Amino acid sequence: MENLNYISSSQNPKLKRILQLQEKSRNRKKESIFVVEGQREINLLLKANYSIEELYYCEAFHNKDNLARFLSKVKIHYSVSKEAYQKIAYRGSTEGIIATVKAKNHDLNKLEFKTNYPLILVAEAPEKPGNIGAILRTADAANVDAIIIANPKTDVYNPNIIRSSVGTVFTNQIALANSIDVIAYLKENQFEIYSAILQDAVSYLTPNYQSKCAIVVGTEADGLTNEWRLASTQNISIPMQGEIDSMNVSVATGILLFEAVRQRSI
Amino acid sequence: MENLNYISSSQNPKLKRILQLQEKSRNRKKESIFVVEGQREINLLLKANYSIEELYYCEAFHNKDNLARFLSKVKIHYSVSKEAYQKIAYRGSTEGIIATVKAKNHDLNKLEFKTNYPLILVAEAPEKPGNIGAILRTADAANVDAIIIANPKTDVYNPNIIRSSVGTVFTNQIALANSIDVIAYLKENQFEIYSAILQDAVSYLTPNYQSKCAIVVGTEADGLTNEWRLASTQNISIPMQGEIDSMNVSVATGILLFEAVRQRSI
Repeated sequence: MENLNYISSSQNPKLKRILQLQEKSRNRKKESIFVVEGQREINLLLKANYSIEELYYCEAFHNKDNLARFLSKVKIHYSVSKEAYQKIAYRGSTEGIIATVKAKNHDLNKLEFKTNYPLILVAEAPEKPGNIGAILRTADAANVDAIIIANPKTDVYNPNIIRSSVGTVFTNQIALANSIDVIAYLKENQFEIYSAILQDAVSYLTPNYQSKCAIVVGTEADGLTNEWRLASTQNISIPMQGEIDSMNVSVATGILLFEAVRQRSI
Repeated sequence: MENLNYISSSQNPKLKRILQLQEKSRNRKKESIFVVEGQREINLLLKANYSIEELYYCEAFHNKDNLARFLSKVKIHYSVSKEAYQKIAYRGSTEGIIATVKAKNHDLNKLEFKTNYPLILVAEAPEKPGNIGAILRTADAANVDAIIIANPKTDVYNPNIIRSSVGTVFTNQIALANSIDVIAYLKENQFEIYSAILQDAVSYLTPNYQSKCAIVVGTEADGLTNEWRLASTQNISIPMQGEIDSMNVSVATGILLFEAVRQRSI
């Protein structure tokens, strides 16, 4: 490693930039760059053909074989002193590796499907990073063909989403658009639309999800906007048999998606 | 209201006791008393036949009709000044009502079933209050006959569990015991045991859950202890089709329970 590529001070402008990119979605948008920490996450984004701009690592926290494997995949890398690394590490220091990465284009028209009967999850206006991460993990497990975040409120490259999604924010195919455009897209492409709306709903067990279809979920607090009620092929709900009338949105999403998966497996 | 029942100072020993009960599970255990905040939660615990010891309210945050309804149900109540109330309010001041409540007995042998084919959820060693709350909400929605927390690590009357369960910690029938005793109980009472364990598992869609059965889930990090593998009628798993190999435990619990509910509804 050349000395030029060694950063000892946390006042280094490159590290200051990383902190800004972690903290401010405005900076991420302006640069179309975001920050990822952790071996597992970086592995998943490489697998998903994201392009790493720069890699920062701290030798104190690494075994050499692992490190060499990562360095071989990225042109620009910097060795960072333990003290400086700890200033930029979002998750403590155990991972010892941080990358700046080019954002992808998440337009609806970039979606590609490998099957004629894709299953799409649409989540409207999810806000809490932990919930979004859990939804992305569930969508990964159900192997949906795409996730569309309608009326997005939170930057998908928010560090807490990356962390709570365990990197599935990279491997899932994700589009972002306002609800009106999502509905137009789904209609134009002949998707059945199953909206999780209590009004005029049938049990989620009733529809046949073997067709080309989208399952649409809103937030716990506000549900879905009225556009989805009007656009829906059929509203669906999970019959609640207990004392309360709402479920955690990521749990409800899991139940709905895995019913579709069940039907598609028989 | 008599002046005797007005508390103006946050230094009042009764309010200090409330703070201690909120913060320390040791104190809750010693007194067999816990603290509940919020109208919805207090309604649910009254519905579940919990016994309220004392009620504390702040008139500044209440409409009178609502308040009268609560006061009619409890013998001992105290009006608290706005300043003092804000010191004990765990969730800000919007709810304006706090109760100290007698803990129930959560022994296995207290479980009672209204059906010959009960469905039980067993969660082993869940730790995060948020996860436990989400599991309790999901169990409520699925209307399980009981939840057994095996090898409990967190006091069920933890304020964050009460809050994240939206009060279903009261309305659900809950038993607490170590795993060995839970297994003995289930065997003795002829429950089929379906443990969420990857090893030798079939898909969770395979078993018939219409029998008297227990669905058993462990933690995301550690899974289930070996006792459950040995005791299992059949190990089950949710086929993961994506890039990662784990799911949020409350999401997985929802998928498993609602498959049992689906089978029981047809």
